[in-house]
Amino acid sequence: MKELIKDLVKNGQYSQIKQEIIKMNAVDVAQLFEELEEESIMIIFRLLPKEMAANVFTYLSFEQQQYIIESITDKETKIIMEDLFLDDAVDLLEEMPANVVKKILKNTTEEKRNLINHFLKYPDNSAGSIMTIEYADLKKEMSVNEALEHIKKTGVDKETIDICYVTDKYRKLEGIIPLRKLILNDGSKKIEKIMDKNIKSVQTDMDQEEIAHLFKKYDMVVMPVVDKENRLVGIITIDDIVDIIEQENTEDFQKMAALEPSGVEYLKASVFALAKHRILWLMVLMISATFTGRIINNFEEVLAAIMILNSFIPMLMDTGGNSGSQSATLIIRGLALGEVHISDALKIVWKEFRVSLIVGFALAVVNFFRIYYLEGIPLDITIVVCITLFLTIVIAKLVGGILPIFAKLIKVDPAIMAAPLITTIVDALALIAYFQMASHFLGIA
Amino acid sequence: MKELIKDLVKNGQYSQIKQEIIKMNAVDVAQLFEELEEESIMIIFRLLPKEMAANVFTYLSFEQQQYIIESITDKETKIIMEDLFLDDAVDLLEEMPANVVKKILKNTTEEKRNLINHFLKYPDNSAGSIMTIEYADLKKEMSVNEALEHIKKTGVDKETIDICYVTDKYRKLEGIIPLRKLILNDGSKKIEKIMDKNIKSVQTDMDQEEIAHLFKKYDMVVMPVVDKENRLVGIITIDDIVDIIEQENTEDFQKMAALEPSGVEYLKASVFALAKHRILWLMVLMISATFTGRIINNFEEVLAAIMILNSFIPMLMDTGGNSGSQSATLIIRGLALGEVHISDALKIVWKEFRVSLIVGFALAVVNFFRIYYLEGIPLDITIVVCITLFLTIVIAKLVGGILPIFAKLIKVDPAIMAAPLITTIVDALALIAYFQMASHFLGIA
Repeated sequence: MKELIKDLVKNGQYSQIKQEIIKMNAVDVAQLFEELEEESIMIIFRLLPKEMAANVFTYLSFEQQQYIIESITDKETKIIMEDLFLDDAVDLLEEMPANVVKKILKNTTEEKRNLINHFLKYPDNSAGSIMTIEYADLKKEMSVNEALEHIKKTGVDKETIDICYVTDKYRKLEGIIPLRKLILNDGSKKIEKIMDKNIKSVQTDMDQEEIAHLFKKYDMVVMPVVDKENRLVGIITIDDIVDIIEQENTEDFQKMAALEPSGVEYLKASVFALAKHRILWLMVLMISATFTGRIINNFEEVLAAIMILNSFIPMLMDTGGNSGSQSATLIIRGLALGEVHISDALKIVWKEFRVSLIVGFALAVVNFFRIYYLEGIPLDITIVVCITLFLTIVIAKLVGGILPIFAKLIKVDPAIMAAPLITTIVDALALIAYFQMASHFLGIA
Repeated sequence: MKELIKDLVKNGQYSQIKQEIIKMNAVDVAQLFEELEEESIMIIFRLLPKEMAANVFTYLSFEQQQYIIESITDKETKIIMEDLFLDDAVDLLEEMPANVVKKILKNTTEEKRNLINHFLKYPDNSAGSIMTIEYADLKKEMSVNEALEHIKKTGVDKETIDICYVTDKYRKLEGIIPLRKLILNDGSKKIEKIMDKNIKSVQTDMDQEEIAHLFKKYDMVVMPVVDKENRLVGIITIDDIVDIIEQENTEDFQKMAALEPSGVEYLKASVFALAKHRILWLMVLMISATFTGRIINNFEEVLAAIMILNSFIPMLMDTGGNSGSQSATLIIRGLALGEVHISDALKIVWKEFRVSLIVGFALAVVNFFRIYYLEGIPLDITIVVCITLFLTIVIAKLVGGILPIFAKLIKVDPAIMAAPLITTIVDALALIAYFQMASHFLGIA
């Protein structure tokens, strides 16, 4: 399909392009635009039917949106702005440079402009900033038939009418009723009798991560947003929530790998921006790792006496880091999904302790056979290495299990307590254990 | 609310419990059950209205579901099975032990039993295994009024009728039409004229991860599932997709931390199961790390000559591991979200190379000042450490950037190319670079 259209563009067969393109999904058209020259984009964009144009527009990258707005007339801008859902219009204004914003606002009705201004005041990532105001609004005194009539008259411009909201004269939310329930009920029934009064709603300032939790917990598809007086001000739809879930996951992945979170796609991010998001944490961890180096310095005479001890350091450090990071990851993820809570701290410590005994014992035994029998290391040194390995795993699992909980307790994102930080901490503890054991049992110090 | 009900249970005030509990959401009732004694659960469960009972039942843990089925009569089992959606019934049967399965099947109608058997044949995690068959089915010859009439008659048992499907007499999928579009159109209009023929559908054997991608890409809420002859066999709803997205993310988090993926919640998993999921990878990585140890062994004379070199090893190893894991995480996540593809390999190498020059230079400079001026290490050793640090970061970022792509190419999950494996590989490379530089520039070997 894409190849076909690219060919048609090359040959200037515009009427055929139009025929093909109106059969396509708006998402696919937007994706096609990414592969075309800017001039072709403008030609095809102008061929799109009015309604489809606004729809395709919302799926374009911000760079392409900017290019289009800059290229089209005021009248064309006006048409797009009329068809854009309010939340998409707000997203657009937040990203565009000043001259484009000016052109957009000039071509927006005053009513919509006021709404947009109102929206821009909600804090980032709050319910207010992700909601849309296009919902269907009913009164409890209506009959089912009256309600359906009302929806028919007003429903066309709504983002979704699958779920309708019942409000009183002060716009206070009184109930919800899915469209399907209206259809399945007798036409003369009063809305009040069939609406659901057990409503889950959120306030405008609630954080999007919490809202996503509620959607998941209650298997919701739409969520009403109310102000402090319980007046309905908007709705949040599941498609935005799915994006938020992936965004929050991406942030966690990034934080857990010592990256400053960034919402920009890898291939679209500049080299300088990528470097900037990596340097700070690497620097902090590099400097922390020098403490581990100091420990080695302090025990120089132990190493000088038995050089072979040196060759087990990478294995001890890596295994410690990996063991701790396994535990930390499970707890961080459990906290993010709401499966684990701060109050579970003791349970976690006890569980990790028992797990670490099993894991530590298994690895120590394998290690014993490997270095004593296969590598022929003297028995006393083998024992020191194996006991250190065991202790390292126990310490690592306890540290990895408890640090994310501690982070949550002091209101820091648990995701930073992942592999990089845990490794640095456990490295130091492992080496101290190692050298203490060595100087004690091998009679060096 | 929970406290209130717990009190009522304690005092045996059952009529009041019933009054309170029917006001609650099924999810909340299920959550309350987790905190109650088994006997109280049975009492309250029997107080629930028929329809709510099945609904609460689907939200319970498998252990509680098993307990309830074992405790109730055949007649009660029959009632629950009648009200359970087919996909929930299938999930239940897959998890229950044989005696419970027998009791369930005995109390299921033959028709439903056949459907369940059919479902159980779909491979795990395929479209067939996650779909439900409760959808609304229309014919293109119907008028809008006839369609609404048909939905009224048959719609009550459907999981969702927000989107209806138009099929021909061979059950082939011809179009889709949202319920809201039916409402907004004139009653005499033919379905054929207003249905959407541009249908996104999936086949029964498609993997759930791919399906989730389609939902995200096209902002879908329901997806039709067809067989190889394009006959409609079921639908997949967004609430299941949200669960799948989180499940796939959890698997990636686990694999990236050298854990064998497990779907069991941390607090519910046994100590033995937790240990089992950790040991294998730790063992593999522990043994790999011994190669790093060998490298240190081989350069023993370099270290013996200049012991201070030893104290920079943790810093070099950790920074290398962290640098590589930053790059790997960005690429693994990009691949999972479909933002990065195998064909981008060269772009990634070139980008990571430039990023690594900036990051490596910045860290090397900071390190130079720290160890030359603050720690007073001789200039030649300082230079060796800083150049090694720079090289380590460049190597780490290239390895971290390219290994996930390579994994994808050979059809291995890119998520295993994360911190643990990258660290082990980069450790070895960093040490070789370090000792080569040292023996070369410090004139030891």
